[in-house]
Amino acid sequence: MNSEKLKIAVLGGTGHIGEGMVLRLALQNLMAEGVKNEIIIGSRSRESADEAAKQALSELENCGFDTSGITITGNSNLEAAKAAEIIILTIRFDYVLPLLDEIHEALENKILITPVVPMVKEGNLLVYKPPEEGSAALAIQKKVPASTKVVAAFHNIPAGKLKDIVKCKAVYHALVCSDDEEAKKRVMELTQHMGCLKPLDGGPLKQANTMESLTPLMINLAKLNGLKDLGINFT
Amino acid sequence: MNSEKLKIAVLGGTGHIGEGMVLRLALQNLMAEGVKNEIIIGSRSRESADEAAKQALSELENCGFDTSGITITGNSNLEAAKAAEIIILTIRFDYVLPLLDEIHEALENKILITPVVPMVKEGNLLVYKPPEEGSAALAIQKKVPASTKVVAAFHNIPAGKLKDIVKCKAVYHALVCSDDEEAKKRVMELTQHMGCLKPLDGGPLKQANTMESLTPLMINLAKLNGLKDLGINFT
Repeated sequence: MNSEKLKIAVLGGTGHIGEGMVLRLALQNLMAEGVKNEIIIGSRSRESADEAAKQALSELENCGFDTSGITITGNSNLEAAKAAEIIILTIRFDYVLPLLDEIHEALENKILITPVVPMVKEGNLLVYKPPEEGSAALAIQKKVPASTKVVAAFHNIPAGKLKDIVKCKAVYHALVCSDDEEAKKRVMELTQHMGCLKPLDGGPLKQANTMESLTPLMINLAKLNGLKDLGINFT
Repeated sequence: MNSEKLKIAVLGGTGHIGEGMVLRLALQNLMAEGVKNEIIIGSRSRESADEAAKQALSELENCGFDTSGITITGNSNLEAAKAAEIIILTIRFDYVLPLLDEIHEALENKILITPVVPMVKEGNLLVYKPPEEGSAALAIQKKVPASTKVVAAFHNIPAGKLKDIVKCKAVYHALVCSDDEEAKKRVMELTQHMGCLKPLDGGPLKQANTMESLTPLMINLAKLNGLKDLGINFT
């Protein structure tokens, strides 16, 4: 690892899963092992990104952590993406493809992580509804520059438990897939030190559809069986 | 529960998953709680069904169990289905639909359990390949009499661990879905006492596609990560 911090943009970092991601990534700076990083929250409005960054820092402080070595800032989606080496899209599928057009120039040679799951409500259950490309990941890959390394990961992580940084010590599996072996390996390493996640190699990006479809399945299982915030474990 | 034993046919009980199912179901007769049952293994050839029944009994004996209260017999698929109240299809998807034509008359009012997963090999990985109905379960429902209660279950259970009746005490989740609430409840009860399975309500039969697609995912994850015989747990 070089001494410079890894810059990670969490686009949509003002949302439910984004919040947990930001906290978990920031906490890596307090760990003995793992990547030292700097988080830039991206949002449509720079103001709400700034606000989310301040909130994340004060949440870490409220938990008693020393935040002097932690940098979390906010910016527009485009500026956040430009500044970062790794970009995480914690955004609803409907908004992702137009956003990729907006930030297209910032994506060259970057690692782009998609936890995006296209799903719709039918009755009281959710149904996985991939685009014609077969998955959100493949639709995203079609939109970005050829040099962008798309990695599908973090679909099946319970948002509530991700945010509960002090109490949640349970370990869940996080499936990671990509056509770029090097990028996949880096994301798996990043995952390893996120406090409650164990990465599993999910194979090539074509496999993302099965990973994406786990999210509505798990939300449905929780609903049908009176459970909450389910994580997954392969044993 | 009435005092008469529940008759369960395991069609394709001579195969890998069938074997484990037969052993786990037969063992219920030795448990304080759970359904007392009688197993009829079905096969294309009555002789190999007979052989599989004898082998299952001797495997239980070899493990030291008292098999005097356990009945496992073999028969043709049609006769096995006719005799049973619950029928389990542990058969490859390619063979299932023709078989349903053969045993059509025996299916009226029965509970038909499908752990069937249509998948194909692409490169060194498996890909879920459902029929146009959306899942094996929905294709099966289209083929059977209207009075047959189709229940999708037992897709994601590690065959090796299912067969390892003495050592395997690990508990895996088994997802169960059906449009018939009563039948779903009965299969969940049956599952509860199989020694290493915890049932989860998976909702209506339309949800079976996600459950079926878990099987190739889990086989791929095992292959890609040097693991073996993965089970699933939602925590």
